[in-house]
Amino acid sequence: MAQQVYIFDTTLRDGEQVPGCKLNTKEKLDLALKLEALGVDIIEAGFPVSSPGDFESVAQIAQAVKNATVCGLTRAVQKDIEVAAQALKYAKRPRIHTGIGTSDLHIKAKFNTTREEILERAVQAVKWARNFTDDVEFYAEDAGRTDNEYLATVVEAVIRAGATVVNIPDTTGYCLPHQYGEKIAFLRNNVSNIDKAVISCHCHNDLGLATANSIAGVLNGARQIECTINGLGERAGNTSLEEVVMILKQHKDLGYYTNVNARELNPLSREVSEVMRMPVQPNKAIVGANAFSHSSGIHQDGFLKDAQTYEIISPDEVGADGSRIVLTARSGRSALAHRFQKLGYQYTRNDIDVLYGSFLQVADKKKEVDEQDLHQLAKAYKPEEVTA
Amino acid sequence: MAQQVYIFDTTLRDGEQVPGCKLNTKEKLDLALKLEALGVDIIEAGFPVSSPGDFESVAQIAQAVKNATVCGLTRAVQKDIEVAAQALKYAKRPRIHTGIGTSDLHIKAKFNTTREEILERAVQAVKWARNFTDDVEFYAEDAGRTDNEYLATVVEAVIRAGATVVNIPDTTGYCLPHQYGEKIAFLRNNVSNIDKAVISCHCHNDLGLATANSIAGVLNGARQIECTINGLGERAGNTSLEEVVMILKQHKDLGYYTNVNARELNPLSREVSEVMRMPVQPNKAIVGANAFSHSSGIHQDGFLKDAQTYEIISPDEVGADGSRIVLTARSGRSALAHRFQKLGYQYTRNDIDVLYGSFLQVADKKKEVDEQDLHQLAKAYKPEEVTA
Repeated sequence: MAQQVYIFDTTLRDGEQVPGCKLNTKEKLDLALKLEALGVDIIEAGFPVSSPGDFESVAQIAQAVKNATVCGLTRAVQKDIEVAAQALKYAKRPRIHTGIGTSDLHIKAKFNTTREEILERAVQAVKWARNFTDDVEFYAEDAGRTDNEYLATVVEAVIRAGATVVNIPDTTGYCLPHQYGEKIAFLRNNVSNIDKAVISCHCHNDLGLATANSIAGVLNGARQIECTINGLGERAGNTSLEEVVMILKQHKDLGYYTNVNARELNPLSREVSEVMRMPVQPNKAIVGANAFSHSSGIHQDGFLKDAQTYEIISPDEVGADGSRIVLTARSGRSALAHRFQKLGYQYTRNDIDVLYGSFLQVADKKKEVDEQDLHQLAKAYKPEEVTA
Repeated sequence: MAQQVYIFDTTLRDGEQVPGCKLNTKEKLDLALKLEALGVDIIEAGFPVSSPGDFESVAQIAQAVKNATVCGLTRAVQKDIEVAAQALKYAKRPRIHTGIGTSDLHIKAKFNTTREEILERAVQAVKWARNFTDDVEFYAEDAGRTDNEYLATVVEAVIRAGATVVNIPDTTGYCLPHQYGEKIAFLRNNVSNIDKAVISCHCHNDLGLATANSIAGVLNGARQIECTINGLGERAGNTSLEEVVMILKQHKDLGYYTNVNARELNPLSREVSEVMRMPVQPNKAIVGANAFSHSSGIHQDGFLKDAQTYEIISPDEVGADGSRIVLTARSGRSALAHRFQKLGYQYTRNDIDVLYGSFLQVADKKKEVDEQDLHQLAKAYKPEEVTA
């Protein structure tokens, strides 16, 4: 029996706090409804205490969203939690997400305090939050660099205090996949009440490992992934929602599933990119413009014989435009023959051999050979050796 | 004793074959010299048989590069190999990179042949190549989906035939890190002559796992990583050079090093992006425009107290512009106080508390609050409660 991995989308919180990505209430509400339609389980709608505008956005999303859980972020501060609870008052499924830094660096440099004091504040924050909702998630900020023994103590205490989800963020994107996986396994094996809470992964991409770390977390017992459309988020961003969803979908033998409707991934990626004015690079997995383009001769030849030779995902499965065969100086005869045929030209193998030489002369001078170039090549071609 | 991992750059081959990325000879030569200056060990300069233009590019790079190995790609086809050898004739350290598909899907769909026939062609290609140079790399295309037993047979045979590097490509970006790592470990444990060759990782990023897979390969015995600047390459691209280099640099406890000069990573990233006209998204690890930006209040407060709370790499270490503190509606009092101070205003904590309210009103309406906004806030501020 496949197990569900909950998708916790934080595009509207960790994504929206990125320089240049701020949205107004209408834009946030609109995206929240689309995230719900995509099938995410939890929508982190914002950080209500941060500004009156964000409070209003969270409040409106809380009222409008019907199926997904709506979550608000707070520090481990009573006022933050009260304001978040206020913003979430009309949510059908409200979640308060509270927490505090647990690495020694955060404890000393940020809070100038002790492990004992942090533990106390963590427990207190969860108890406060439980006054307003039964669904309380606790984050141990910089858990990626937190000593595992102390992290286990904190996690055990907050679950006892009522946390239903424990979030283990690799805040600075430091961990390697096996290290992050071992951290989750350590908690599974050393926190006595761990079965009373869902373990969540929140990984940053500073070394390009957010996706791999999140999957390593799931393989070691986590059942929620925090992620964003297009991997937006502070600095190098968060885990890309589209990547973790498709990994679990493609690797069915792992035994997990999500509720995300993959066909909406590309349309929603484009929409987020436009409204947040954050470009997606062409070579981005799943949602990049080139994710399903083939241009070298070897690849095009294989692709035309059987798409699966070079594609593990069919573009329509993720709502992308069809695969593209782009003609460049690295293309081979089979791609050229294929394109001529699509344009209505009936050429023999010999014809293509001759035409390929002229094609390369054009292609060496251009980025891409287009249909007009092909028509000109066809026009200039005199098939002297055509058999009757 | 730390061990060297060789960096094999294929920006000019796998990167350059991407739609729109084609370069002319001068551009390729210019980048090759910059890659050499960056400190990569091997430059894959092109696919000489693919077009006269690419032959010329490889030939000129072969003559100009002094320290790095210069490599040319071929299929397991005698003519390809002869043409590559010709292009590499004047290279100080020439390498021929030949190979063939080894997955059952490639064997049947692309070649319509048998495992035995493929094995024979692989061995033959390596022997041909060894006529021209002592440095021959063999790629087992689609190794990611190739049966491990058969892959081991092929690898053993090509090493016996003279291959000095064996490349195990995850051509379609299918593998999970633990699977790719196990594949490399299988070869280490089941190929009797494996110590006579360097194992190379060539991973694609279709599921966002190229970097993690390459590192998993190294942890299991690979000693060469094939990668590109900005992760360019077919479809969702290749492994990002900047990511694997910085992972090995940041995680010194793993015991590996590369010869890459990290301070050149950002300048060369920008140059490749410009000359190939391929944008790098702002949330790209190491080289994205936002990779060192901090905008949420929690992060800015921590960063201002100690940069390491939210940064594992210092921007100057990778040649990036300094960290940025961007003022948005998610910023907090400490970032605001910091910016006012930099502009010459001397405010008390009480002043900042009052000013913060006006700041948020401006910030809720804008993407980013700039210096001009701050001066206006300061001008409008009447500190009635200032103590004498």
